[in-house]
Amino acid sequence: MYIAPVDDIAFTLKHVAGLKSALDQGAFGELDEDTVDAILHEAGRFATDEVAPLGDIGDKQGSKMVDGAVRTPDGWADLYRRWAEGGWNGLTAPEEFGGQALPHLLNVAALEMWNSGSMAFALCPTLTMGAVEAIAAHGSGNLKAAYLEKLVSGVWTGTMNLTEPQAGSDLAALKSRAERVGDGSYRIFGQKIYITWGEHDAAENIIHLVLARLPDAPAGTRGISLFLVPKFLPDAAGNPGERNDLFCHALEHKLGIHGSPTCTMIFGDGRYGAEKGAIGWIVGEENKGLACMFTMMNNARLAVGMQGVAICEAATQKAIAYAKERTQGKAPGAKATGMSPIIEHPDIARTLLTMKALTQGSRAISFSCAHAIDMSHATSDPAKARFWQERAALLTPIAKSFSTDAGVDVASLGIQVHGGMGFIEETGAARYLRDARIAPIYEGTNGIQAIDLVTRKLPLSEGAQVRGFIAELKEQAEAVRASNTPELGETARYLDRSIIDLEEATEWLLDALAKGETSAALAGATPYQRLFGLALTGAYLAKGALASVDDGQGANRTALCRFTAENLLAETSALKDRVISGAASLEAARAVLG
Amino acid sequence: MYIAPVDDIAFTLKHVAGLKSALDQGAFGELDEDTVDAILHEAGRFATDEVAPLGDIGDKQGSKMVDGAVRTPDGWADLYRRWAEGGWNGLTAPEEFGGQALPHLLNVAALEMWNSGSMAFALCPTLTMGAVEAIAAHGSGNLKAAYLEKLVSGVWTGTMNLTEPQAGSDLAALKSRAERVGDGSYRIFGQKIYITWGEHDAAENIIHLVLARLPDAPAGTRGISLFLVPKFLPDAAGNPGERNDLFCHALEHKLGIHGSPTCTMIFGDGRYGAEKGAIGWIVGEENKGLACMFTMMNNARLAVGMQGVAICEAATQKAIAYAKERTQGKAPGAKATGMSPIIEHPDIARTLLTMKALTQGSRAISFSCAHAIDMSHATSDPAKARFWQERAALLTPIAKSFSTDAGVDVASLGIQVHGGMGFIEETGAARYLRDARIAPIYEGTNGIQAIDLVTRKLPLSEGAQVRGFIAELKEQAEAVRASNTPELGETARYLDRSIIDLEEATEWLLDALAKGETSAALAGATPYQRLFGLALTGAYLAKGALASVDDGQGANRTALCRFTAENLLAETSALKDRVISGAASLEAARAVLG
Repeated sequence: MYIAPVDDIAFTLKHVAGLKSALDQGAFGELDEDTVDAILHEAGRFATDEVAPLGDIGDKQGSKMVDGAVRTPDGWADLYRRWAEGGWNGLTAPEEFGGQALPHLLNVAALEMWNSGSMAFALCPTLTMGAVEAIAAHGSGNLKAAYLEKLVSGVWTGTMNLTEPQAGSDLAALKSRAERVGDGSYRIFGQKIYITWGEHDAAENIIHLVLARLPDAPAGTRGISLFLVPKFLPDAAGNPGERNDLFCHALEHKLGIHGSPTCTMIFGDGRYGAEKGAIGWIVGEENKGLACMFTMMNNARLAVGMQGVAICEAATQKAIAYAKERTQGKAPGAKATGMSPIIEHPDIARTLLTMKALTQGSRAISFSCAHAIDMSHATSDPAKARFWQERAALLTPIAKSFSTDAGVDVASLGIQVHGGMGFIEETGAARYLRDARIAPIYEGTNGIQAIDLVTRKLPLSEGAQVRGFIAELKEQAEAVRASNTPELGETARYLDRSIIDLEEATEWLLDALAKGETSAALAGATPYQRLFGLALTGAYLAKGALASVDDGQGANRTALCRFTAENLLAETSALKDRVISGAASLEAARAVLG
Repeated sequence: MYIAPVDDIAFTLKHVAGLKSALDQGAFGELDEDTVDAILHEAGRFATDEVAPLGDIGDKQGSKMVDGAVRTPDGWADLYRRWAEGGWNGLTAPEEFGGQALPHLLNVAALEMWNSGSMAFALCPTLTMGAVEAIAAHGSGNLKAAYLEKLVSGVWTGTMNLTEPQAGSDLAALKSRAERVGDGSYRIFGQKIYITWGEHDAAENIIHLVLARLPDAPAGTRGISLFLVPKFLPDAAGNPGERNDLFCHALEHKLGIHGSPTCTMIFGDGRYGAEKGAIGWIVGEENKGLACMFTMMNNARLAVGMQGVAICEAATQKAIAYAKERTQGKAPGAKATGMSPIIEHPDIARTLLTMKALTQGSRAISFSCAHAIDMSHATSDPAKARFWQERAALLTPIAKSFSTDAGVDVASLGIQVHGGMGFIEETGAARYLRDARIAPIYEGTNGIQAIDLVTRKLPLSEGAQVRGFIAELKEQAEAVRASNTPELGETARYLDRSIIDLEEATEWLLDALAKGETSAALAGATPYQRLFGLALTGAYLAKGALASVDDGQGANRTALCRFTAENLLAETSALKDRVISGAASLEAARAVLG
């Protein structure tokens, strides 16, 4: 059974991601460590005691269409209400709408734990938080007044309606349309697919944020507008009133996240209301919908990264517990008679340590990204704000892709540790793989993240952001060397090597972009993204190992850091090679694909 | 839709695995290339036209327990009968029992295609073939006479009953027991789990091969005997007669291979027959059951490797087809207006080429293993026979593990290429991952294969076998260099490097074993196994690229070989590093696991 790793999480956010020094400098006002700890403990308790026990039920039952309505798994509607009543939905939301305006990092840490309990469940609030952000940032005063308080409290939930059958990654291909009514409202028509929690029975109202085109909109992404379209139109008192002209046509039959209803939504076909067309209001300006959507999407990408971390943690816990119980064969050097717990077999220990290393690396990267977002808001110095915005922008695709790839890999290794039991659904190890598999896909596939990283993030400040980051990593390696810690073994050497690999690959890519060799740069985007994530994993674990915190875990952090450096980091050279030398052979081999 | 890659398969078995030169030398009597081609084409036709169309139905319906009987998916029983009537079950079986005594390599090639069509379906004959082998090699004349013809024809099917709840990898822990009746027969008692096709409705009778202990048997693996235990006892005419005292208690609810009934079998609880105890006959000698089981298991391991290859091929075909159809965004340098097929995006092309490389590498390794088995039987020279037996023994764990790991990785990449569609079950890409995930586990987990490779296979002939193999690989790299083929780019250099990595890791492991440092050797067993597989992939693709065969595919083979060398082989250095330098940090980090 999953137990929220509150201490690990608290350590990582304070001493690796940088929250402690930010708190010490007063970056977040009166927020102090005790409050942080209290929030993390309570979030962890909720994840362990309330969410996790309903995770398997949700997977088994799934959300279902029953007589045209979506029924969530037994206990989930209640669970959601308890969760919202706990105030969790408003952790980072503006205080004027009932939120607590706490750092994003705390929310991200809590998200990890809820996702470990049940990724399918935690998706619902993730979407609502995105809607709150978009409306808070771009909505009119009327929209904010009518919707934010209910969304912040979680009495209502939110959705993102982007995808259409012909438009997945490519939003320029959107066809949903909006018509001006003349009274400031719009009528929305179209079909959207893959709408997470698009319809359900856990909240009074569902607020859809929908991308659509106005009749006179320019083609492509410059002609997309964002609309707020509620399931029930608020009445004069602000309560759910008349039904709007939209409905869930069907649920998808998916590999995983069965508890989460993935809806096909139909807007404006005349099923409800006197007149055809779902009533909506614009969020932001006409034809500027994409910018508004990106407000949601950046944080959503990090939130999906947290799903990867969450699966890593839960799958690793489960595998370690099993490996301690299950006995088979005799481990080399075992003193006891009879069979050994399989954790004593070196190959199983290697697998579990690799799982732990990927978990902690992903968590540190994702938390660092969240911290950068917080710091960008916490400063009034424009140069500092820009620095942190760029750092967050640079880290976002890595946090999303490295963590979600790790989620799949770690869940798969977790099944392997369980042997035959891992393939049996009742064991629960397979669910982690099934759930994890969507995370590298949605909110922009990891391939899209890699394109974003290489073509948009590396050139930030003419490369100064990424170069500055690499310089920081070198300092980290130097600190390891200077610490003269024998227990860190060859960590400094491996860190050096991985950072130099990162630097060489980065310079090669910046050069290729400067020369307009986009195709060659893109050919290496995915290996580069992983290279960056691995180098960061090494550096962040080293940062944690060097932090002298008297919590009894120092020796373990040091040992895991060394294991990571000496076993996982050497891969960066192969990845660098692939970035720098792989493109020509890839180009030459295209004919192989027919 | 899957189309059996008959030409690719024929090329690999003839020109990479070595069948052509063996045929030319008359190693397999009168068998000629035309016959080989005809068999492959017909097996491919059956896989494409008959098996593949029922694969999705089998996954969706699954095999079910209905009123105590196991019902296979719609059409499967008929499919099985058509398949058996085609004579496929007896391809390699002895002629005196109705088989065709063809090389194992042909069977393995056919198995690949059937498994691509439906892995769940192809499992059934795989188990029967194992039973045929064990009975043919170790059974008494009476057993052979009573069972082999029916099993070879496929009118009856076979199973392997090894696993018990407490005894998965560790057969020493078996508790099922057998009692001597006195008339040469035995009574068998016990519970077996994970019995593939242990009960079903597709054949007249099911012949279980069951491991159990006699009352006076020594403890551990030296006290295990193998028994033949039929579902129906043959009557005087040799037809299924009285029901034996065994039954399927339940089916497992699994992540994948839903069509294949995975049974919990109960032997001897008195449900059938006047007296308690399932009636069985010994196969081989008392207490020598493990040796008999290994006869089946070695070939079964290779057969599981073929499942990995099969999933690689099917998932790759599906992903390529989708990537040609699906348009999103504009690929760099695209000339056409509008969206590009995603196959034109460099990142997708990289993914698909990686999938193709792993498919072809796995296939070449597995076919080479099958060819070595054939050659060991085809020679009357004991030294040559021993050489080929050792080659097969060395290749078996690599064929099993590298191919099945590739199956999981390629299936997962296949989902990724499909984007959101990949996560929807109806698309069919997710089935490949669900099915593939069992293959690294059963017939000895890939971790067990790695232990076998390092501790039992490397020491063969005091290391001469593996050293000789590495010398052959070096010749292959030399041949690439000598060919002066500009289209092979840096292939020779990358091959050299990977083979040197393999050599260094091999020598380090042999040295560690010689010094009794088993734990250190085992700590690197899994990375070593992958290193070996990657080096072989490079060498075999190069062998294929250099073979001048006028089939219009030469340029593609060359381009894929170069892509593989320049993109995948650099990983071997990191793997070598992990083998040689990883053990100390692993040992030091054990405390991290608690």
